[in-house]
Amino acid sequence: MKVPQNVIAAVRGNDDFLLASHIGPEGDALGSQIALAMALEQAGKKTTLYNRDGVPYFYEFLPGHEMLRTSLEGLDTESMTLLLLDCNTPERAALDGVNFKFAVVIDHHQTGNDFGDARWVEPRAPATGLMVFELIRALGAEMTREMATNLYAAIAIDTGTFRYSNTSPESLRAAADLVEAGAEPSLVAQMLYESWSTNRFKLLCMAMGGVEINDGVAFTTVTQEMFRKTGTTSEDTEEFANQARTMGDIKVSVFVRELPDGSWKVSLRSKGAYNVAKVAEGFGGGGHINAAGCRIEGDLASVKKKLIEAIREIL
Amino acid sequence: MKVPQNVIAAVRGNDDFLLASHIGPEGDALGSQIALAMALEQAGKKTTLYNRDGVPYFYEFLPGHEMLRTSLEGLDTESMTLLLLDCNTPERAALDGVNFKFAVVIDHHQTGNDFGDARWVEPRAPATGLMVFELIRALGAEMTREMATNLYAAIAIDTGTFRYSNTSPESLRAAADLVEAGAEPSLVAQMLYESWSTNRFKLLCMAMGGVEINDGVAFTTVTQEMFRKTGTTSEDTEEFANQARTMGDIKVSVFVRELPDGSWKVSLRSKGAYNVAKVAEGFGGGGHINAAGCRIEGDLASVKKKLIEAIREIL
Repeated sequence: MKVPQNVIAAVRGNDDFLLASHIGPEGDALGSQIALAMALEQAGKKTTLYNRDGVPYFYEFLPGHEMLRTSLEGLDTESMTLLLLDCNTPERAALDGVNFKFAVVIDHHQTGNDFGDARWVEPRAPATGLMVFELIRALGAEMTREMATNLYAAIAIDTGTFRYSNTSPESLRAAADLVEAGAEPSLVAQMLYESWSTNRFKLLCMAMGGVEINDGVAFTTVTQEMFRKTGTTSEDTEEFANQARTMGDIKVSVFVRELPDGSWKVSLRSKGAYNVAKVAEGFGGGGHINAAGCRIEGDLASVKKKLIEAIREIL
Repeated sequence: MKVPQNVIAAVRGNDDFLLASHIGPEGDALGSQIALAMALEQAGKKTTLYNRDGVPYFYEFLPGHEMLRTSLEGLDTESMTLLLLDCNTPERAALDGVNFKFAVVIDHHQTGNDFGDARWVEPRAPATGLMVFELIRALGAEMTREMATNLYAAIAIDTGTFRYSNTSPESLRAAADLVEAGAEPSLVAQMLYESWSTNRFKLLCMAMGGVEINDGVAFTTVTQEMFRKTGTTSEDTEEFANQARTMGDIKVSVFVRELPDGSWKVSLRSKGAYNVAKVAEGFGGGGHINAAGCRIEGDLASVKKKLIEAIREIL
């Protein structure tokens, strides 16, 4: 992976930067943003970090996260250089209609658009954090412990700590360098995977207690009453749909949660060739072959019946 | 990490090897054994792989696992060189009283004993698989895809796919080389973490449904009736004690399972400075500060009461 010369030139040749990432940011967006800002500060440049949605509480372990701001108020963006990270359109970063002196895109997501005066898009990179790692190296900045922790977290979250098929030799070698620079793998893993609230864990226990498994299809349900009993919200159900993937011979995992209006949000996960997008599309939703979603109205029993019938079609 | 010359000499200078690892083997023991045997076969040497307990079904994805045998019958061990992997006493490998021409120990466990004619013990190595990786390199053998998969699995299991504090830059760089040689991180992760039997998952769901959490202490129970209902055995409860670690503010996680005689096997896990070894010792058991175990007799209610009182002492 080689950093394009026009990206290096744009960073070297400017002094006032807005670093932005996509709304609803996760570790790769935030870690990339913070580490790159620290590298630019080392070179005496001015940096402003922006994300409309701010830093979720479980990413507050990232050193430097307090630099993020959620508003552009008071900024003269027309004299600033935009560094757009982990996304590639202004809309994804809530920057529609904002003008900049120059715009640089650094992203690992596939895209058809051509926004940006300088673009570095690498769909084969497992994480934007790995691209920022290369850029920081190309700039000759010193990799501090704080920068290393941010980049290790960025790469770790997007590879599932080196469990996903995007895990490349380059990402493992970068991780090795980052550990040498002071990143602590166990700290990052603990923050990413072992920092659930007690209430969230109680909700999971309650949901797991009611899981139904038939013919390779697992059904997990969370109702509004369960949210009330455990003091949790829909945010706390992230990852619930994936629990049943632990089973070797699971075909489809269905997770339904009740919305405040009594309808049901359905998340479908599958292994192998079972195309759950087809199921979701039948209910007006969509997604990919192994991960899809939709919304269905009705009482729980009839929703389940409809889903099971639709799933039977793809097995 | 440097391979001692006398270990290399013992491997180069002999032709008939017994490769053995500890009873109740896991991925590091098996992967190390198989990969090293393949490297020796490349050099035209004769190898026999032994583990008294054989290969657990969930490690049958390791290429070459079928080379393992569970008996020494018919072997003239006195003319063979022993390569003892991932343990350092004959007892741990069920080899007490068996004589060899020469014995080499390769292990990353701390030890006070001095068994072996050549010894290579590296307590700082995260996995024996990393030591075997270095040895194979020192021997100049070609790293095939099969060997790489075994060693990647060995290193992955002992570092929790690079989540534990033993994750070193060397282990990440070795992993990078192994991926280049053909190891597939997502395949290994799927085999290690997403291959539970449906019955085992049903037992987990049932156990999670009954979890009690009070003042940072989580209590998970599995009874003989639950084993019967789900068609599972005590083997299937591995990792159950760790589930509650997902919570950020958990102090102690207690897992009790009923034994066939009606007494209770207790597994204690903690975070930080909470010393569960002290709790276990009070009931005649033992362990480390963050992981300990014991056995208690009595009905479930009184066992819980005793445990909660003892745990209160260490909070």
